[in-house]
Amino acid sequence: MRNRLFWLGAIAAFITWITPALAQIDPLPSWNDGSVKQTIIAFVTDVTREGSPDFVPEAERIATFDNDGTLWVEQPVYVQFAFALDRVKALAPQHPEWKDTQPFKAALEGDMAAVAAAGEHGAVEIVAATHAGMTPTEFKQIAKDWLATARHPRFGRRYEDLVYQPMLEVLAYMRANGFKTFIVSGGGIEFLRAFAPERYGIPSERIVGSSIVTSFERRDGTPILFRLPKVNFVDDGPGKPVGINQHIGLRPVAAFGNSDGDLEMLQWTTETGGRRLGVLVHHTDAEREYAYDRDSRVGRLDKALDAAAMDRWTVVDMKRDWKVIFPPETR
Amino acid sequence: MRNRLFWLGAIAAFITWITPALAQIDPLPSWNDGSVKQTIIAFVTDVTREGSPDFVPEAERIATFDNDGTLWVEQPVYVQFAFALDRVKALAPQHPEWKDTQPFKAALEGDMAAVAAAGEHGAVEIVAATHAGMTPTEFKQIAKDWLATARHPRFGRRYEDLVYQPMLEVLAYMRANGFKTFIVSGGGIEFLRAFAPERYGIPSERIVGSSIVTSFERRDGTPILFRLPKVNFVDDGPGKPVGINQHIGLRPVAAFGNSDGDLEMLQWTTETGGRRLGVLVHHTDAEREYAYDRDSRVGRLDKALDAAAMDRWTVVDMKRDWKVIFPPETR
Repeated sequence: MRNRLFWLGAIAAFITWITPALAQIDPLPSWNDGSVKQTIIAFVTDVTREGSPDFVPEAERIATFDNDGTLWVEQPVYVQFAFALDRVKALAPQHPEWKDTQPFKAALEGDMAAVAAAGEHGAVEIVAATHAGMTPTEFKQIAKDWLATARHPRFGRRYEDLVYQPMLEVLAYMRANGFKTFIVSGGGIEFLRAFAPERYGIPSERIVGSSIVTSFERRDGTPILFRLPKVNFVDDGPGKPVGINQHIGLRPVAAFGNSDGDLEMLQWTTETGGRRLGVLVHHTDAEREYAYDRDSRVGRLDKALDAAAMDRWTVVDMKRDWKVIFPPETR
Repeated sequence: MRNRLFWLGAIAAFITWITPALAQIDPLPSWNDGSVKQTIIAFVTDVTREGSPDFVPEAERIATFDNDGTLWVEQPVYVQFAFALDRVKALAPQHPEWKDTQPFKAALEGDMAAVAAAGEHGAVEIVAATHAGMTPTEFKQIAKDWLATARHPRFGRRYEDLVYQPMLEVLAYMRANGFKTFIVSGGGIEFLRAFAPERYGIPSERIVGSSIVTSFERRDGTPILFRLPKVNFVDDGPGKPVGINQHIGLRPVAAFGNSDGDLEMLQWTTETGGRRLGVLVHHTDAEREYAYDRDSRVGRLDKALDAAAMDRWTVVDMKRDWKVIFPPETR
């Protein structure tokens, strides 16, 4: 009998020994030590410790994350824009008139300046041609198929591989501490749903994004949803707090962004009495990723960078703070 | 040492004995035995058993519940309508003109026929006067305060006490089996959020409802959301599948409703290949609650009752199937 008891004792000793050891494991191993990493860990520690003056009950631990430029690469163009251009090319044989019609002509010729010159009206036309006229399920499948094959022009990797490893760690760390993590993106909600649940571990009901109008219809006796070429909601800038309220119904206690499109979300999150966390990812690493801020056409960070000082947001210096940018290549 | 081992053994034996005993505990004690209870339990059992041909992975176990008439009383008028009328009365001193303006005059005089005669236009005016012009937080507090004191005219109990005990058991039972439960209601999303999280155990991001337009503004240097007197989304009838797609992004495998406003939600849920559950609560108990269906102005159940036979939905006969209607009085 002593033998069995010995093992019971040994196991108990091991558990006693491993528990504090486990607690010491670095939750953010891809972050360099420094004030940014410290700020994130101190925030999570302080709002989750019972009895702390900053304690936030689990039901209110809402953390929102922008996607483009905050969780994955947004240069040289937003991923969803690259998707739309590829869709224009794929659909062109059915639309011979596009060869002579802007903005399609420019899109087919890869003339980004001319596409940009077509402005919002042009963008809406491209979205209507590539994102509407099918069910959400069909659209999600088209997006999935594209994501499975398309490659980033500079890195040659699939877009889903160009998510930021340090941010994946933040997502997991916050969830392990009872936070609900949400995506609040200017991108299309159904495009996000094509990859975000699997890639970020964020289920589809925790994804907030822009949308086009969807209608319920019966076709051949079967109920379907159908995507119409009409903007429903733009989840960007002042739209982000509105989208958060509509979908989540609670004010976040932590928000992560990287551009002026996140300004209002961070203001809404942090400009209150309690302990809050506002984080901006500043793209400072031209070598490993990109360096851009005030003058960038994509992901401009200007007003929000000024606001960061005033509102005491934490600014991630990608070059300084991140040990690695992307997850290791596995395919 | 034998003593300690004896207790370890005894505990092990107890666990071995109690586990199947626990499994035998009735998950729906307020439901009378019969085909409806059997159908609900068989569905949950079959879609959650690994290896079952009907198995549904946990991520796809989405169950949607209408609120008025499905989870709580909706007679003699929708609870939110009673709230709006009480708000008209409370705000009347600041609006002397209401004494001579419809639909407010009728609302103040309790002339329901005249309020109804004012139709949709009248309803929008009442909503604008009572639901807009404040922040969502302020509105939620007004609704909470009202719910804390208002009493149902027939039962004399608070409205939050007039939820259906058998449905509370279904919510808990499905969640215990890995389902995510959502409210999908024609009622106002912020009104629902004032009580549903606590009452039903459904967090605010799993509540889908109708809404008015909310704008993000800065007032006195502080960011606020502000409720405007303009309809944003009507989550009723064909709006329910649209609201489900917008907020949840997955097609439910189970849906519970009670009126024609739930027709499209149940069609969308059940008219597919796999094993699905559609349930209609039929109000057949004039003695303990109310009896109404095809001719009712509130919660009319007509087309959906016809569809139930065709689509093989399960129809709850409240009088026959429910042992009790409401939770026991505790206050």
